[in-house]
Amino acid sequence: MSSAAPPDRSTGEHADACELLALVAVFELDDVGRFGRDAAEAFDAVPRLALARRAAAAMARCEATLAHLVELGGDPAPAMRDYEGVFDVFDARTEPGGWEEDVLREHLGRSIAEDFCALCSASLDDGTRSVVGAVRHDPASADAVRDAAARDTVLAARLSLWGRRVAGEALVLVQELLADHPALGRLAGDRAEVSRVLTENHASRMRDLGLTP
Amino acid sequence: MSSAAPPDRSTGEHADACELLALVAVFELDDVGRFGRDAAEAFDAVPRLALARRAAAAMARCEATLAHLVELGGDPAPAMRDYEGVFDVFDARTEPGGWEEDVLREHLGRSIAEDFCALCSASLDDGTRSVVGAVRHDPASADAVRDAAARDTVLAARLSLWGRRVAGEALVLVQELLADHPALGRLAGDRAEVSRVLTENHASRMRDLGLTP
Repeated sequence: MSSAAPPDRSTGEHADACELLALVAVFELDDVGRFGRDAAEAFDAVPRLALARRAAAAMARCEATLAHLVELGGDPAPAMRDYEGVFDVFDARTEPGGWEEDVLREHLGRSIAEDFCALCSASLDDGTRSVVGAVRHDPASADAVRDAAARDTVLAARLSLWGRRVAGEALVLVQELLADHPALGRLAGDRAEVSRVLTENHASRMRDLGLTP
Repeated sequence: MSSAAPPDRSTGEHADACELLALVAVFELDDVGRFGRDAAEAFDAVPRLALARRAAAAMARCEATLAHLVELGGDPAPAMRDYEGVFDVFDARTEPGGWEEDVLREHLGRSIAEDFCALCSASLDDGTRSVVGAVRHDPASADAVRDAAARDTVLAARLSLWGRRVAGEALVLVQELLADHPALGRLAGDRAEVSRVLTENHASRMRDLGLTP
């Protein structure tokens, strides 16, 4: 499975990796609930099926993450409980006002999570880097936002502000995670540097979408 | 995949099988939404994970069903749209009043669906019988109801009435399906006989749970 040496169970390397894996599992599990609820509310079989497929894909990533956590000697239930409700404030403060805001929020949120996971997992075992690296944004959603923004400058201006708000809330959440979970703090390194990298990548992503960072 | 001869695409056998497969896909997709929504509302990581797993299992059955529908030359979207909202009345009239009612409703509803699918698919190709046969009740849920009813006679009396109501609504739904979808009517055969078989199996299931049919 892994070309690197397996982590030494007698050190803390493990515990830190398990904390990161639990965060990823909770992140994906949150999406299962979100997409599942959206599927239940969909008014037609085609979007319902598409949303149910996204729920199933998130669940597959959650399962792969938990399987690796168990492999590293972690216990899923208490590890996940440490992050109970961790996305509630972010979700409440970024309630989308329409289809484009929903898609942009999803794209930016996943992209920031992807960057954060890359920063945290750089020094970890191959298995962890691989499952954690599966938190990926969906390129199709970026294309949809880019097209919509290119057609409509008023919409582009609104989405620029929205993107700034989503990223702002995501960065606050990241700093809270680093403060509340020392393991993540150790993995991610200097907090100011984390913010700098995430902000810089976010800005270049916004420009790539034709939006103002 | 199948030991029987593949269905002849020039006859109506196909179209009928596809109508049954679409119903099963809609049934499972409905469960993805239900379990996903319940997962989103769960107050703890452990039940949330369990519910998300049930959503993913329902989605896997939905995918297998749709894959076979496509194999038989069917088109998922219009086929599923023919059943749009088909479970709404049943769901609204069997809103559970608690944990035991929820579990019993799930058990009885799935069991009746299982019987109905067996009746409809008896004359169809192996592939259809196999995917349609995956609509199965969860034996663990039956055990939970049996144990709860054995411990509490007042609860057992309430669940007996509840089971009768759930089965009544399910039988009404089955008759509506047979009336509205001639393909299902052809597959299932005599309507009175369908009701007789479903009612008889339901009664023996209730007795097996320690409940009065």
